[in-house]
Amino acid sequence: MKILVLNAGSSSIKFQLLLMDKNESIASGLIEQIGQPSGHAELKANGQKYERNQEIKDHHVGLAIMSELLKESGVLNSLTELDGIGHRVVHGGESFKSSAVVTAEVIKKIEDNIPLAPLHNPGALAGIKAAMSESGDIPHVVVFDTVFHQTMPEEAYRYAIPYDVAVKHHVRRYGFHGTSHQYVSQQAAKFLGIQNDKFNAITLHLGNGASVSAIKNGKSVDTSMGLSPLEGLIMGTRSGDIDPAVITYLIAQGEITADQIDNFLNKKSGLLGICGTNDMRDIGERVEKGDKQATLAFDMFCYRLKKYIGAYYAVVGKLDAIIFTGGIGENDQAMREKVCGELAHFGIKIDSAKNRDRSNRGDRCLDADGATIKTLVIPTNEELMIASEVVRLTK
Amino acid sequence: MKILVLNAGSSSIKFQLLLMDKNESIASGLIEQIGQPSGHAELKANGQKYERNQEIKDHHVGLAIMSELLKESGVLNSLTELDGIGHRVVHGGESFKSSAVVTAEVIKKIEDNIPLAPLHNPGALAGIKAAMSESGDIPHVVVFDTVFHQTMPEEAYRYAIPYDVAVKHHVRRYGFHGTSHQYVSQQAAKFLGIQNDKFNAITLHLGNGASVSAIKNGKSVDTSMGLSPLEGLIMGTRSGDIDPAVITYLIAQGEITADQIDNFLNKKSGLLGICGTNDMRDIGERVEKGDKQATLAFDMFCYRLKKYIGAYYAVVGKLDAIIFTGGIGENDQAMREKVCGELAHFGIKIDSAKNRDRSNRGDRCLDADGATIKTLVIPTNEELMIASEVVRLTK
Repeated sequence: MKILVLNAGSSSIKFQLLLMDKNESIASGLIEQIGQPSGHAELKANGQKYERNQEIKDHHVGLAIMSELLKESGVLNSLTELDGIGHRVVHGGESFKSSAVVTAEVIKKIEDNIPLAPLHNPGALAGIKAAMSESGDIPHVVVFDTVFHQTMPEEAYRYAIPYDVAVKHHVRRYGFHGTSHQYVSQQAAKFLGIQNDKFNAITLHLGNGASVSAIKNGKSVDTSMGLSPLEGLIMGTRSGDIDPAVITYLIAQGEITADQIDNFLNKKSGLLGICGTNDMRDIGERVEKGDKQATLAFDMFCYRLKKYIGAYYAVVGKLDAIIFTGGIGENDQAMREKVCGELAHFGIKIDSAKNRDRSNRGDRCLDADGATIKTLVIPTNEELMIASEVVRLTK
Repeated sequence: MKILVLNAGSSSIKFQLLLMDKNESIASGLIEQIGQPSGHAELKANGQKYERNQEIKDHHVGLAIMSELLKESGVLNSLTELDGIGHRVVHGGESFKSSAVVTAEVIKKIEDNIPLAPLHNPGALAGIKAAMSESGDIPHVVVFDTVFHQTMPEEAYRYAIPYDVAVKHHVRRYGFHGTSHQYVSQQAAKFLGIQNDKFNAITLHLGNGASVSAIKNGKSVDTSMGLSPLEGLIMGTRSGDIDPAVITYLIAQGEITADQIDNFLNKKSGLLGICGTNDMRDIGERVEKGDKQATLAFDMFCYRLKKYIGAYYAVVGKLDAIIFTGGIGENDQAMREKVCGELAHFGIKIDSAKNRDRSNRGDRCLDADGATIKTLVIPTNEELMIASEVVRLTK
């Protein structure tokens, strides 16, 4: 079975072609600068790169070019040959409790959720509509970042604001990165030989965006991102948790206006705000040189993470494993060493040599002798998870 | 030694007279509606109540009436007989790392911190100035709600916003209820026979305002309130932690304006927002009758608390005790039962009969056999703590 996975934004489309019989990606690429005078498209397959530099006026043109490149590379003659296309959609709001085969009603519901994700859902919709008109009669499936977290109990997903306002405007914790949290927790259960519906874990998806989930009996029972991806951990450019009074205070001091809040907290804060860069590799190098601001950023990042692990340990009860994933989670050994080293009293204990071994890039356990909670690194694979959902819903 | 403790707000002054040789309160009272046409003052001493109903145009008049009532009751002839007066001040900003004997410079610094606590510091200042002019030559000491938390490390007190903005506007976690957290943690160490500077605990000050502190080696290393008392736990009318994007989203939906944020999150949210009342006793009664909204409010309150206990357990390491205090902490057995009951995997285990025993109102331990972390109830006594600071700084 050949499944194509699309991740469409307002001006870009990422794609990956998967061979599901082998759970293998055989081609991946990116269409960029859609709607701008200078567009760019590229595809990697068979160890080669295929490119186009030309104006890409909309998502239709983008997908037509993708189709050409797939043909040129020899991996796919036509989109109509596909067994299905999976679309990543950021926000499913309260309408979607699972992935769904695309219908007119499904599209309407995604449109209805635009106010919750005004920057993300319109791009995804453009991608879905273009793909449907370019691919003939094959099935399309939407997979949402929010769905895996729809199992949270109400005590975890409600905010303590007036209840009628919350209900009227659908204000609640949704959580994001759900596809990744789901993938790595299922993969970890398999790795440890634990039945998924009896598996308790804390999943740490740490990239430029970052979130933590509490997994109980294989289900998400809490997560650090909320109504939006701003809440929770310290991220590349996002503040994460903050006293909401900081906002009104900075407005009162004349530092920002109400219109600037979003940009201030989402784009100028986080690691970037503390030390001037949002790249954890640069921060790591500066920490080694004794740079004070980089060390503060690193320490704050780890400290916030440690608090979430404790909070979710309280929530989950008996804990089988903590699981690192995402660019930072999979690669930043110094971060893992610090966070885990300070949680020995929980029974978390990692082996320094295993933690530093960069030759093993696969699913792995970092435990030292005597650990009672396992520490795993599971590389995430959202595309495979999305493609699996297409197979599940269309067979 | 006789010490008077004053807690002055913009339109009220609470006071208590303490006999320090016995650590005993011998009179307490309240001046209300200062600056309004109908003022009210009352004093309780010797099992009797002394009152005045008259206009109280300012803090000077208020304290003159207090002085009269103290004389009338026979507990104090004149304020000049006092060994000192202790003033509670909410916000010490970054200027105060300990309590301080009042000088012109100290007053100046409290004035400088008004932007951080515009609703609280001006009232305290009015109280200090009035008391100084009414009490002759005796020493005055200011005790801040923020000071006990000044030992937090930078990774705990910084927010992940642009560092230069944070430094310029003194934006950081300060924390409040410090006098209470300090008092109950010291008292608990004494109760357990542990040296205070080796004592690790989590203190839960739960009243209409509520906060948690992580205590390591007798010092506050983290606390749930932040720049303001809005952050952290779900409170009577305050939201506590919330995705800051909720604010911009509700503004975009036309539900609130930027000017209404403070009022919305501080006065209309919390338990009141969820279920229509901020009185935990009412909520408890409604929960017993199966009321859905009250049950949600109660569950959310307990859930948030549980997450903070986990987070601070991660921070503190080896934990000696969790300590309940404040009106809700000292009295709400259902809340204690739920929170502790769900933390058995941490080694927290309370005895149901001890928890329900309302005959013991003093310092007490609720442990069941097999508990490895002690659960204590320590009634708070901020006035005694403030008076002790007066003694310490003036002897």
